[in-house]
Amino acid sequence: MNHERAAAALDAADPLAAYRERFVGTDTDLVYFDGNSLGRPLKASAETLAGFVGGEWGDRLIRGWDEGWMDLPLTVGDDLGRVVLGAAPGQVTIGDSTTVLLYKAMRAAVAARPDRTEIVLDRDNFPTDRYVAAGIAKECGLTLRWIDVDPAGGVTVDQVAEVVGERTALVVLSHVAYRSAWIADGPAITALVHEAGALVLWDLSHSGGSVPLALDDWGADLAVGCTYKYLNGGPGSPAFAYVAARHLPVLDQPIPGWIGHADPFSMSEVHEPAAGVRRVLSGTPPVLGLHALSIALERFDGVAATELRRHSLALTDRCIERADALGLEVVTPRGHDDRGSQVSIRHPEAWAVVQALIDLGVVGDHRPPDLIRFGFPPLYLRLEEVDEAMTRLAEVLQSGAWKRWRGAERPTVL
Amino acid sequence: MNHERAAAALDAADPLAAYRERFVGTDTDLVYFDGNSLGRPLKASAETLAGFVGGEWGDRLIRGWDEGWMDLPLTVGDDLGRVVLGAAPGQVTIGDSTTVLLYKAMRAAVAARPDRTEIVLDRDNFPTDRYVAAGIAKECGLTLRWIDVDPAGGVTVDQVAEVVGERTALVVLSHVAYRSAWIADGPAITALVHEAGALVLWDLSHSGGSVPLALDDWGADLAVGCTYKYLNGGPGSPAFAYVAARHLPVLDQPIPGWIGHADPFSMSEVHEPAAGVRRVLSGTPPVLGLHALSIALERFDGVAATELRRHSLALTDRCIERADALGLEVVTPRGHDDRGSQVSIRHPEAWAVVQALIDLGVVGDHRPPDLIRFGFPPLYLRLEEVDEAMTRLAEVLQSGAWKRWRGAERPTVL
Repeated sequence: MNHERAAAALDAADPLAAYRERFVGTDTDLVYFDGNSLGRPLKASAETLAGFVGGEWGDRLIRGWDEGWMDLPLTVGDDLGRVVLGAAPGQVTIGDSTTVLLYKAMRAAVAARPDRTEIVLDRDNFPTDRYVAAGIAKECGLTLRWIDVDPAGGVTVDQVAEVVGERTALVVLSHVAYRSAWIADGPAITALVHEAGALVLWDLSHSGGSVPLALDDWGADLAVGCTYKYLNGGPGSPAFAYVAARHLPVLDQPIPGWIGHADPFSMSEVHEPAAGVRRVLSGTPPVLGLHALSIALERFDGVAATELRRHSLALTDRCIERADALGLEVVTPRGHDDRGSQVSIRHPEAWAVVQALIDLGVVGDHRPPDLIRFGFPPLYLRLEEVDEAMTRLAEVLQSGAWKRWRGAERPTVL
Repeated sequence: MNHERAAAALDAADPLAAYRERFVGTDTDLVYFDGNSLGRPLKASAETLAGFVGGEWGDRLIRGWDEGWMDLPLTVGDDLGRVVLGAAPGQVTIGDSTTVLLYKAMRAAVAARPDRTEIVLDRDNFPTDRYVAAGIAKECGLTLRWIDVDPAGGVTVDQVAEVVGERTALVVLSHVAYRSAWIADGPAITALVHEAGALVLWDLSHSGGSVPLALDDWGADLAVGCTYKYLNGGPGSPAFAYVAARHLPVLDQPIPGWIGHADPFSMSEVHEPAAGVRRVLSGTPPVLGLHALSIALERFDGVAATELRRHSLALTDRCIERADALGLEVVTPRGHDDRGSQVSIRHPEAWAVVQALIDLGVVGDHRPPDLIRFGFPPLYLRLEEVDEAMTRLAEVLQSGAWKRWRGAERPTVL
C-alpha cells in the first residue's frame, strides 16, 4: 500500500507526466505494456489525418507532390535523425517496410565489400533479419557466421571480436534484443567491426524512441528500424534507414525505382541514382504513413533523451523488483547499461499467463517458447501501472487463472 | 453552346452521376484531369481514418492484429481481385510499393525459368519497370530484349510474337501505356508468351479502376499495380500483386520476411514460405494505407465495369473530338479497343501549356518531352468538364498565355 502511494506520488512529480494525456486511451483502465510491439496513437493523429485527407490530398491533389510530399521521406527522416537517432541531416530516409529496408541495406553492404565472403549475425536476432540475411547469403554466394547468444543476454563485444576478420563483409545486429531487451554496445562493436574492415548494420526496431542513440558518434555505417513501436507511427507504418554520409556516394541498392532517380520526371532511359540518401528510395513515398509518423515524432521533440531514459529505467527497475519479490525468473539484464525499455520474464506457461493477464486488463505479449514480455514506452506509462500489472500477475499465478488457457487455440499474434 | 447544353443533359442522365458527390472537391470549380496520377479522396476516407486511429488502433491496440489486420493484405486483395482485376480469391495481396513488388515479381519469374536468358520489355514502359528489369538483368546475368514502340501507340501482338522464343524467361509490359494510353492485348499476348514457354508480368498501374480486367480469363501469370491513381487509395498508398494460383506453390520471391512465413510467430530458425499468396509479403502490413484503400474500393463495388468503360469512352471520345476541332495532334489511339481512360496531346511546349491551364483551374499533367496528359477517372468526371477544359485549352493556345511559362523554373512533378 505504501508502495502504491509512493508510485502515485512519483508519477505525479514526473516531468514526463504531461505527455501521457496526449495519447489515445491513457484515460482508460487498460494497462498497456505492448507499446514495444505497437505504440499507442496520439490524439493529434486522428485529427490531423482526417484534415490531411480533406485538405492536402483532397484540395491540393497532384500539386501536393511539389508542395512537400516529394521530400517527406527526407524531411521526416531528418527529424527522426535529429530527435531520435543522433544523426545529422541528409542520412535518414523513410519508406518501405523494415524487411525491405533490411534487404536493401544488406545487399548494399555486401556489394561494398565484394571480396569478402561472410555475414555475421546472432541466432537470437529477429526472424526477419535472419531470413533476409540467409536469402542474401544464398543469392550472393556468401556464408552466414552465427554467434550463439545467452538467452538471458545478448551479443557481447568479445563475441563479435571472436568472429569478425578479413572474411567479414557485414555484421547484422539488433541494438536492443527483441527477446531479452539486452543492449548491444553500439560504439564498441562498430569500432571493432571497422577494425576488421567490415561494415555493421544495426536494427534499431526496439531502440528508436526508447533508448538513447548516437549513430553519428558511434561511426555507424547503416541502420534500419520500424516506427510503429516506441515511435507510435501506427500499425505497419513505414520504416527508416540510416546511411552514413560517407557511404552515400557509392551506395548501390538493388531496387532502383524512379523516386530514387537523380531526376525522377526525366523518365530517362537509364537509372541514375539520386545524390544523397534519396537513392535509398524505390517507390512512391507513403504520404499517409509519413504524415502519421511526423505527428507522432513531434511529441518527442523537446523531450530530453536523458529524461526518457531515466523514466524508462525507473519503470523497468520497478518491474524487476516486483518480479524478484514474486520469485520469478527475469531474463532481462539487470545492469542499467545493458537494458532496453522492456522486461522479459521466463515462465513455462508464458502464453497462457499472458492471456489470463489480458482478461484482467493488462496487455503484454508472449514470445516462444517461454517468455512473458512487458514493454515500457516511457512517454505514456506510469509507475502505478507497473504496480497494477505485477499485482495482477501475482493474482494470475496464485489463482491458477492461466490454467484455463492451456491447450486453447492460439490466435496468430497475441 | 448547344454542345455544352448537350453535355449537361448527358451528365445529368448518367447512371454514374450519383458517385461524383462521394468524392472530396467535386463541388469546386477545379477541373481535375490528373486522377490518372493521383485520384481524388472519398469523403468517407477522412472520417473512417480518423475513426480508425481513435478506435481500432487506439482502443484495440496490439489485439487488432488478431482481429483482422493480419489478414488485411489478403482480404483487401481479394476485394480488389473481385471488384477490379477479375481474379478469384487467394491470388492478390497488397503491400509494399509498386517498385518493390515489380522487383519481387520479376525475380520470382526469372527464378521460375532458370534455363532462359532474356527479359523482354518495351522502351516506352514506365521508367521504374525498365530500371528494375535492368537491375535484375545485371544481377542475374540476363539480357534485356527491347521492343521499340510507336510513340503514338504501344506494344502490339505482332511485336511480341517477333521477339519471344525459347530464350525468353519473362515479358514485362504495361497493360495501359502511361504515355499514349494504348491498351496492350492482354489475352492474346499472354497466350503468345505462354506458347513460347515464358511468363508475362503485367503492370496494371494505369488500368486498375479504369479499364475492364479479367486476369484469370487471360490466363495471366503475374501482375502488379498501384492503387493511388484510378483506385483513389491516397498518395503513395500500398501497391498490389497478383500471382496466378498455379504458380503460388513454387513462387520464390527474394525478400523473405516474417509476415510471409508459414507461421510468423513461431520465430523459427529457417524461413518457410506461407502457403498461398501470403508468401509474397515481406514486412508488417501497412494497416493505415490498407484501410484507406479498402474504403476507396467500396465505391467500385456494385458499379458494372461496362458502365465505367462506357463513361470513360464517352469522356475520351469527347476530348479527342474537341482536340481534333482545335487541330491538335492526339497521340492516344482512336480505336475504342486500344484506348485507356486518358488522352495525350502532343505539343512542343507541353509543359508551359499545362502550367497555363492550371492557372485557369484545369489540372492535367505533362510527360517529357512534348505530351499534355488528361486522365479521366470515370467515377467522378463529367462531360461538361471536358468541354470546360478544352475551351480553356483553346484560350491558352490562342492567347499565347503559355508563353510566360517558357524558361520558368520547373518544379519536380507538375
